[in-house]
Amino acid sequence: MKTQVAIIGGGPAGLLLSQLLDLHGIESVVLERRSRDYVLSRIRAGVLEQGTVDLLRAADVGARMDRQGEIHDGVEISWHDERLNIDIKDLTGRGVMVYGQTEVTQDLYNARDERGGTVLHEAEVTAIEGIEGDGVTVHFTHEGEAKTLTADFVAGCDGFHGPSRKAIPESHRQEFERAYPFGWLGLLSETPPAAPELIYAAHDRGFALCSMRSPTLSRYYVQVSLSEKLEDWPAERFWDELRTRIPADVAETLVTGEPLEMSIAPLRSFVSEPMRHGRLFLAGDSAHIVPPTGAKGLNLAASDVYYLHRAFDRFYNHGTSEGLDAYSETALSRVWKCERFSWWMTSMLHDFPETGAFERRMQRAEFEYLQMSETARKSFAENYVGLPY
Amino acid sequence: MKTQVAIIGGGPAGLLLSQLLDLHGIESVVLERRSRDYVLSRIRAGVLEQGTVDLLRAADVGARMDRQGEIHDGVEISWHDERLNIDIKDLTGRGVMVYGQTEVTQDLYNARDERGGTVLHEAEVTAIEGIEGDGVTVHFTHEGEAKTLTADFVAGCDGFHGPSRKAIPESHRQEFERAYPFGWLGLLSETPPAAPELIYAAHDRGFALCSMRSPTLSRYYVQVSLSEKLEDWPAERFWDELRTRIPADVAETLVTGEPLEMSIAPLRSFVSEPMRHGRLFLAGDSAHIVPPTGAKGLNLAASDVYYLHRAFDRFYNHGTSEGLDAYSETALSRVWKCERFSWWMTSMLHDFPETGAFERRMQRAEFEYLQMSETARKSFAENYVGLPY
Repeated sequence: MKTQVAIIGGGPAGLLLSQLLDLHGIESVVLERRSRDYVLSRIRAGVLEQGTVDLLRAADVGARMDRQGEIHDGVEISWHDERLNIDIKDLTGRGVMVYGQTEVTQDLYNARDERGGTVLHEAEVTAIEGIEGDGVTVHFTHEGEAKTLTADFVAGCDGFHGPSRKAIPESHRQEFERAYPFGWLGLLSETPPAAPELIYAAHDRGFALCSMRSPTLSRYYVQVSLSEKLEDWPAERFWDELRTRIPADVAETLVTGEPLEMSIAPLRSFVSEPMRHGRLFLAGDSAHIVPPTGAKGLNLAASDVYYLHRAFDRFYNHGTSEGLDAYSETALSRVWKCERFSWWMTSMLHDFPETGAFERRMQRAEFEYLQMSETARKSFAENYVGLPY
Repeated sequence: MKTQVAIIGGGPAGLLLSQLLDLHGIESVVLERRSRDYVLSRIRAGVLEQGTVDLLRAADVGARMDRQGEIHDGVEISWHDERLNIDIKDLTGRGVMVYGQTEVTQDLYNARDERGGTVLHEAEVTAIEGIEGDGVTVHFTHEGEAKTLTADFVAGCDGFHGPSRKAIPESHRQEFERAYPFGWLGLLSETPPAAPELIYAAHDRGFALCSMRSPTLSRYYVQVSLSEKLEDWPAERFWDELRTRIPADVAETLVTGEPLEMSIAPLRSFVSEPMRHGRLFLAGDSAHIVPPTGAKGLNLAASDVYYLHRAFDRFYNHGTSEGLDAYSETALSRVWKCERFSWWMTSMLHDFPETGAFERRMQRAEFEYLQMSETARKSFAENYVGLPY
């Protein structure tokens, strides 16, 4: 097989890149290790920045999102029973779109199908060759056969555990990591959301988040220690713990229900530099992970894809490699700022077991500074709705 | 001896409180452990917030400051050779006043002398009695004799090491502390400042600060490890180290000279709660310490004194103890926000030996976020010029 851009990974980053390249007349093939059903079963974040929303519209996959997504103009932070509403629309002129990542991925699959895009599922990449040379060969197995895909370039959209990042020689990359001493226990339920807006709640017992995917689908999280096991968390225990950590009046009216899904995820900050090596370009989780606080993961993948599809467009349609040459630096500049915000928000709102009394007061002082200063709230808001591309 | 408010400590906090009480017709006596010359020989910060400036003017001690002090409308942060000017005047409508703490103290002594205020020097407090009762007795030695001062209230303006805080029973106070794993090596020289504005410089070798007291008196600092000894730092070594850490063009034109003073100071964040116990009220360093980054120490003492003198005024002249009852909470609310800013600025700009690669990138990301976002610079500026009282 032969194409212009080989895309490894059929999650939202790879599919969106493939769709945008197609709209710019650039050929690509997407290789996805899992089945389509598996990809669509992954529960992920559901808060889209304005930039992500605009990019999905530009990619012709915004119609259902615009019909079914909910625009949120604010977000709430609570500190025990003290509540702070941050009116992000008023502060920045922009809101965020609540629309699940699963829905985004579904829309992208539909769009690729419609345009006849090639997405190979259960295609496991075994080797990536030639990224330092004149052309790339991706070796993979598909339907029991060893196959190859040759291309001008390869885009690594294959997540944290995928082979793309590892194709960059270790001597040419540097990894930055912060593992947090806790995880998020999440529960999805077919119940109306606890409140119209997301509530990020700090509490002595740990962080909690009231989130949602739609008016009838709620997503809740409580911070748990990394040693916690899912089997020790029957739904009732989860709901009790959640009610303890969120504002009392929200807890009182909380509608609980049978969990559709429960899972524990660790929290991690991670960046690998550079994001380009020769003919290989990394985008999304393959290059960086943020803790979920603030919901930047998918949005950061979208901004990578924004920069990368423009760089390919300039290369193929305007004959200049400037965009490709600048890609790593351009993308990383925004990545680090979003890493900062996600790390800061995580640091402010979670209970850190090893933290001393002074640092706990610093967390509270961050909250009180947000309470008192419109400038502080504006700074929060401009990061929450998404820094400019 | 008998008075209305016994003030322990004749540094700027105690003197300013005494002066303001006097202007409101309230009697006080200041007990200072050291000689006047000793107090005036202490080298301290020299950046006054607008609120401090206003308070000194209200206390009738602003005349020389207004003549000799220099108003700064901006401040510079450098990151290796990248420089960022933060136009605090443009961002907040306010500037800061560069005028040495020694000068403030001198002006306050002159004012107390002029108004016939009682300031006893070399008066060492040995016991503070009755703070939980109907009146206070301060026992002290002065000119070789044991004496007592009885008063309605006692104000503890006697710094971190003074006896006032310790007069609050341990069961009634909680201390919060963060010691930083480094110190500041400072040098004072009779040379023109390196630049018109203060430069806070982050560098791989550690933090440096170019500051000044006047157009002919400069104050420089370099971050050093706590194990460094002053005798290992001849002036030439200091100047070389400073030049390495500050922007190249500033280093090139730096005028060096014989040091008038050199010293090493550790950095510490500290707060003791509450700031009032019975008839005892703490103000300034006796209740809280900030690291010197951002120059909040004297300014925080001034805001404590602002709240405290108003509370006494309302008690003696308007017959209500509401201000005294609210003092601790009111003062602490601002204290914690300033502790947050000083801690944040210290954390962003210093080299932390134990810090990993990710956290170093977070420091850099803070700088780059300041570079890109006017809102971030405004948040910095509103803290730097001083949060409202």
